[in-house]
Amino acid sequence: MTVPASGTLAEVGEFGLISRLVDHFEQGEHVLLGPGDDAAVLRVRQGHVVVSTDLLVEGRHFRRDWSEALDVGHRAAAQNISDVNAMGGRAHSLTVGLAAPADLPVAWALDFARGFARECALVGASVVGGDLTQADQVVVAVTVLGACTTSPVTRAGARPGDVLALAGRQGWSAGGLAVLGRGFRSPRALVEAYRRPEPPYDAGPAAADAGATAMVDVSDGLLADAGHLAAHSGVALDVRTEALSIAEPLATVAAALNVDPVALILGGGEDHALLATFPSADVLPPGWRVIGEAREAGADGQDAGLVTVDGSAYDGERGWRHF
Amino acid sequence: MTVPASGTLAEVGEFGLISRLVDHFEQGEHVLLGPGDDAAVLRVRQGHVVVSTDLLVEGRHFRRDWSEALDVGHRAAAQNISDVNAMGGRAHSLTVGLAAPADLPVAWALDFARGFARECALVGASVVGGDLTQADQVVVAVTVLGACTTSPVTRAGARPGDVLALAGRQGWSAGGLAVLGRGFRSPRALVEAYRRPEPPYDAGPAAADAGATAMVDVSDGLLADAGHLAAHSGVALDVRTEALSIAEPLATVAAALNVDPVALILGGGEDHALLATFPSADVLPPGWRVIGEAREAGADGQDAGLVTVDGSAYDGERGWRHF
Repeated sequence: MTVPASGTLAEVGEFGLISRLVDHFEQGEHVLLGPGDDAAVLRVRQGHVVVSTDLLVEGRHFRRDWSEALDVGHRAAAQNISDVNAMGGRAHSLTVGLAAPADLPVAWALDFARGFARECALVGASVVGGDLTQADQVVVAVTVLGACTTSPVTRAGARPGDVLALAGRQGWSAGGLAVLGRGFRSPRALVEAYRRPEPPYDAGPAAADAGATAMVDVSDGLLADAGHLAAHSGVALDVRTEALSIAEPLATVAAALNVDPVALILGGGEDHALLATFPSADVLPPGWRVIGEAREAGADGQDAGLVTVDGSAYDGERGWRHF
Repeated sequence: MTVPASGTLAEVGEFGLISRLVDHFEQGEHVLLGPGDDAAVLRVRQGHVVVSTDLLVEGRHFRRDWSEALDVGHRAAAQNISDVNAMGGRAHSLTVGLAAPADLPVAWALDFARGFARECALVGASVVGGDLTQADQVVVAVTVLGACTTSPVTRAGARPGDVLALAGRQGWSAGGLAVLGRGFRSPRALVEAYRRPEPPYDAGPAAADAGATAMVDVSDGLLADAGHLAAHSGVALDVRTEALSIAEPLATVAAALNVDPVALILGGGEDHALLATFPSADVLPPGWRVIGEAREAGADGQDAGLVTVDGSAYDGERGWRHF
């Protein structure tokens, strides 16, 4: 069946579109049965599977007038692959569900699938299944499967005295979103970072190999996600702002918008940077930089989960609220 | 953190609700790391994983005035577990994403989670992760993971001469939906079957053990899904209506609505019955009944995917269209 790239989902139909989408999805050698049956079947050699799921909702996580379909596809895959990265693992398989209005252009869905497949290809992962149905707004549901070569690194292992370290760009996506929110389209580097994050995919496994004690991906905001790590580990964390490097485009945008660039870094999420604790700064792999440290949560643990900035409470935005 | 069961999602917040939802999710011994981290980690002993994903959209797959939240939870889990059943496997783990309006009552989300967890418990599966975010309408995204003890049974193995067989209730959900659509609430058995399907969870693995050559779960409609099996297998299928047993409540509703009960059976989906082909009627496990047979697709294969009823083309509704 040949389906034209023009027209809407309603005109082309579910099965017609699926047949087109599947063309974008190359299957790795671990895929015993790919898309098209009731379920896919994957070979698992490692004795375990790492699994995570995430939703992206139009108007909330992306806007079709701010991001191309290709970018939304990249982002939907990236934010899920990042969750496996944050365990110290590598993604091998993803499923993707797309709920969309009947008048969605077929070209949008095809570009979305192309972007999604390209992001997966960056880490050698296969798109092994999906679902397509109608809804009032575009909702993308992704599940990622992966594996670790070391023990998975949870949020719960940080100990007092550990160093707190960061890998990847941080605050760029928040800066890009702020730019778009004011009606601008530049600086391009930040807008692109918002549209298509570039998570540090090698940094997670490298951190696990180096003995990271706890790790989390920064999706809600640096301080918010640091708080999750601290709470799970039963420690307090302190971030030193002098250790945060402020990239040039971030400084430019902050000046233009009259905001503190440090606020973009501390409150921003969605770059999918990684935050981890290590026993010592000496073991940090390339790409990681120390930004603070873990401390005792007080004699009776009353400070477990507390995140301070330069030793004091922080009164800016800590991150993103879903409701 | 204690969260009241009253109020809305907006009042309680994402993390408050998640902490409540997770209480409903018991973790099996194969779960090395359950909900609450960036990803879950599952032990896999079988060397493979079966994976499938499905979306349910409010107003399309369910209506909050026609189904209780508990029922929607059961159904969301059931339709995914059924996809593993249709491969001849058993589900062991599920993830669930919930996108919902900010004014959704917390009680709805908690009841949904309770129903979802109960359905999973029927097959001993664990809810290992999820996501919660805001959207204009309720969208539920489920991914199921499972395993087979035999080779997975695909849609592609039917051979001419195989018998076509059915397991589970068929047409009940369509009957219940027709009843609700006319503004009635009885017969209760059919309405309940629409709200909460009861897939034949043991029939899939039993069919695989018995040497089923191809299998599919009936979600779009019996003839529509038979068509998928026939197309993948490169055969034609014929359904004999005299072999279809018409359950009493189905006959009652059909008479009251002035429709042919056979039409409900042939066009109905969402009971998640199983349709499979076997080399012979002699090997059918309990719960399976012969309803037709597989035939050559013609000398040049021009009939591959064709499904006839009593040897002739069928001009009624074959199933459900998503767009």
